[in-house]
Amino acid sequence: RKHNSYSTFGQDPKATSVYTHKNAEVSFTTDKYLDLKRNPNFSELTQEDITFFQSILPSNSIIVGNEDDLLPYNIDWMRKYRGKSKLIAKPRTTKQISEILKYCNDRRLAVVPQGGNTGLVGGGVPVFDEIVISINNLNKIRSFDHLSGSLVCDGGCILENLDNYLAEKGFMMPLDLGAKGSCQIGGNVATNAGGLRLLRYGSLHGSVLGLEVVLPDGTVLDNLVTLRKDNTGYDIKQLFIGSEGTLGIITGVSIQTPRKPKAVNVVLLGLNSFEKVQETFIRAKDDLTEILSAFEFWDANSVELIQAHIVQGSKFPLNTNYPFYILIEVSGSNKVHNDEKLSNFLEDILEKQTVEDGVVAQDETQAKVIWAIREGIPEACSKSGAVYKYDVSMPLEYMYKLVEDLRLKLMDAGIYGKDLPINHVIGFGHIGDEPWIYEWTEKHNGSISAEHGLGLMKAKYLRYSKSSSMINIMKKMKKELDPNGIMNPYKFLID
Amino acid sequence: RKHNSYSTFGQDPKATSVYTHKNAEVSFTTDKYLDLKRNPNFSELTQEDITFFQSILPSNSIIVGNEDDLLPYNIDWMRKYRGKSKLIAKPRTTKQISEILKYCNDRRLAVVPQGGNTGLVGGGVPVFDEIVISINNLNKIRSFDHLSGSLVCDGGCILENLDNYLAEKGFMMPLDLGAKGSCQIGGNVATNAGGLRLLRYGSLHGSVLGLEVVLPDGTVLDNLVTLRKDNTGYDIKQLFIGSEGTLGIITGVSIQTPRKPKAVNVVLLGLNSFEKVQETFIRAKDDLTEILSAFEFWDANSVELIQAHIVQGSKFPLNTNYPFYILIEVSGSNKVHNDEKLSNFLEDILEKQTVEDGVVAQDETQAKVIWAIREGIPEACSKSGAVYKYDVSMPLEYMYKLVEDLRLKLMDAGIYGKDLPINHVIGFGHIGDEPWIYEWTEKHNGSISAEHGLGLMKAKYLRYSKSSSMINIMKKMKKELDPNGIMNPYKFLID
Repeated sequence: RKHNSYSTFGQDPKATSVYTHKNAEVSFTTDKYLDLKRNPNFSELTQEDITFFQSILPSNSIIVGNEDDLLPYNIDWMRKYRGKSKLIAKPRTTKQISEILKYCNDRRLAVVPQGGNTGLVGGGVPVFDEIVISINNLNKIRSFDHLSGSLVCDGGCILENLDNYLAEKGFMMPLDLGAKGSCQIGGNVATNAGGLRLLRYGSLHGSVLGLEVVLPDGTVLDNLVTLRKDNTGYDIKQLFIGSEGTLGIITGVSIQTPRKPKAVNVVLLGLNSFEKVQETFIRAKDDLTEILSAFEFWDANSVELIQAHIVQGSKFPLNTNYPFYILIEVSGSNKVHNDEKLSNFLEDILEKQTVEDGVVAQDETQAKVIWAIREGIPEACSKSGAVYKYDVSMPLEYMYKLVEDLRLKLMDAGIYGKDLPINHVIGFGHIGDEPWIYEWTEKHNGSISAEHGLGLMKAKYLRYSKSSSMINIMKKMKKELDPNGIMNPYKFLID
Repeated sequence: RKHNSYSTFGQDPKATSVYTHKNAEVSFTTDKYLDLKRNPNFSELTQEDITFFQSILPSNSIIVGNEDDLLPYNIDWMRKYRGKSKLIAKPRTTKQISEILKYCNDRRLAVVPQGGNTGLVGGGVPVFDEIVISINNLNKIRSFDHLSGSLVCDGGCILENLDNYLAEKGFMMPLDLGAKGSCQIGGNVATNAGGLRLLRYGSLHGSVLGLEVVLPDGTVLDNLVTLRKDNTGYDIKQLFIGSEGTLGIITGVSIQTPRKPKAVNVVLLGLNSFEKVQETFIRAKDDLTEILSAFEFWDANSVELIQAHIVQGSKFPLNTNYPFYILIEVSGSNKVHNDEKLSNFLEDILEKQTVEDGVVAQDETQAKVIWAIREGIPEACSKSGAVYKYDVSMPLEYMYKLVEDLRLKLMDAGIYGKDLPINHVIGFGHIGDEPWIYEWTEKHNGSISAEHGLGLMKAKYLRYSKSSSMINIMKKMKKELDPNGIMNPYKFLID
């Protein structure tokens, strides 16, 4: 969900203090968004409800009453949203989740499923007093088939743990995110996370083989097939991929994992213009085709932030500063072949002056240093103040123009520059996984620079990108699977 | 849908005569399956209906009255199913399809969407008097984006035509089927066709970017996005992928196409046992990883049929006969690297006596000869008599055991052997795309050898592979999108 992110952020003293973990200073979502009204159809938590939850869950799997303990579940990772949940349930089994959901559904208690709480659009935290159902405690690997590479695991398994587990067996997860140390596979699937390996291994709609999902009425949909192809009936699991907790809770995931490449190499390039970034991308697709596994870009402004907040003092791999940088990762089964393809490619783009300079990592440590720059950008943004992040798709040729136009617009408004509210407008992200023409981006250009972002007001967003007949069907699906609307309300699909 | 097919077939004189295109001799599906009853809720075609269709469609786009003209649309490609449709509509626009469907829905006239009519399970032909809506005339390419590789086209475009169109631009379709010269992309998507490129390029759930679908009420779902990643709302298009015409008619497809590899090579190997086939597969995944683009196997019995019916007289590329054969295709951006990986791999498996012999195609013509053997198997089966084909997935180690067990079972029953009703039991198919453990295959072993196959009785099949809660949700989706049940009745989801 964090593709081609464009961020604007300023030295907002309040936001900065927020960063120092004073969670209590984060204002309530309802205080920021006054048009949000609590749905009166939902019940309020009673002592009887608490007693019920306590009868199902051991005492260390339930948080109730203590504000400090509730806070981390009420506030999102970006500290932009804060809910007022009074009860956090941390079930340990699918059966417990089923019992809890059934109870909540019967009682009309709204719930928010929560994974690693690493989302950027406030989808994983409550708005009002929704009960948080955390799947942190569902974290077991259920099976792995060495022959096929199919992994079956609980929804609460942390992505990095899964990747480490697979690495020992010569496999890897088909997705990788900056948040891999905290995000959970159930949340990844619920948000259809893309990340750094999408270019090579495709989306979760292709790699997820099956899901175990608990529906609001307590039904456990057991669809944990490990077949790569299963043409029996409608592919219902796909509805849950990207449904953001509004249809059910993903408690188990079966996923196709690729072999870990035997040889990986990473290159950092410096370029003079975004046009050259595009040229380099096309050449990379032509020359590196099947071994191209990542193509990331960022701008000079991003590097300033990285140097200020992340790699202070340490040496940046390229000596001169360039307006644009590219990270290219290649991976394959034969190091000699990879290196030869890569060096032919680099010679060619250097000779043609498409790129100005570049470094090739000589070992894994150097490769990690280059990746750390790219992966450090979001954290550098957070550390520098309040961040507005826009996750958009764009035809490649317009991709950076948005950043430039936004700078002009903010400058015109007198709010962009040194000692002004907004100090930086940067552009960074993946190229190659979704740089395609999308009608709404054009129509939408006007509101992309709106201050409050797209994330919160999903319904508005949806109108720009999906026709009313599509939204109509989505609403029917929602109504079928969650007739009382208790699953993650106030978000995603709003009337 | 034709993976790991296991076929049994015999010299049935009637079936053989059927092959000589005496379509009128194909018996009606309703005469073979006596438990099928026409749904009395459906109206019967009246002169008034015909007049309506004639008001929408030009006279060359409608077939009514003439039995000979109706026949090709009433009989499937395998000549196993024959319906009694009295009207074939061949609309030229999405709008016409919308008007026709809305009318049929209001009038409760059942319909069967039909593409290239190359399906193997009778899904594309009527059972009773359903109206056939052929999309043959929706065959235009709408757009192609060279930068991204996204193709947008009508649902009736023939797969091979699309592949040829793309080849000129350096791209290719992410799927390839034996039936490519007749099958249509809309039908491919409706049946979630896998085919020969699945191993490398994944399933249509990953490569289809968007769809245009006409719902029974005439609503046109316009979701022809060309973005590789689109996280706005539920991924509704996925419901239609593999829905076999039971939810709507796919009139437009947007699909991600990969670059056409610069270098392709094909190898034919002879092996002594199925265990060695498995060993070779594992080595190929290890050594050829990113350039492995197809791995197909077949048995000696398949070759006998091929030699008897397809390549009579022409030389088979391997001199000796082996119990098993493998076709391996590699493709990538660098011929020298491909060849080096391939020859290292071949040296290794020959030296270890995993394979007995092999030939590497020296040019495209030789590569085509090898592919023609594999692709000729289904046709060779058809030419040799009546065919029962079972499209199953299996853990790799049990894959061929099914064929052996079936031979024993049929032998015990006294019906398998020379001059007996069943002459051949063969095994062939793709390895690598779906050899994974699947609970039902075990339970199902008993009925896989049933004479009438799985295809016709989809509902029974579904019960073995999907839980009742999954089927329950499928039925809800069907009810929502096709409340009158007019879309492709008597198939897929049956009460």
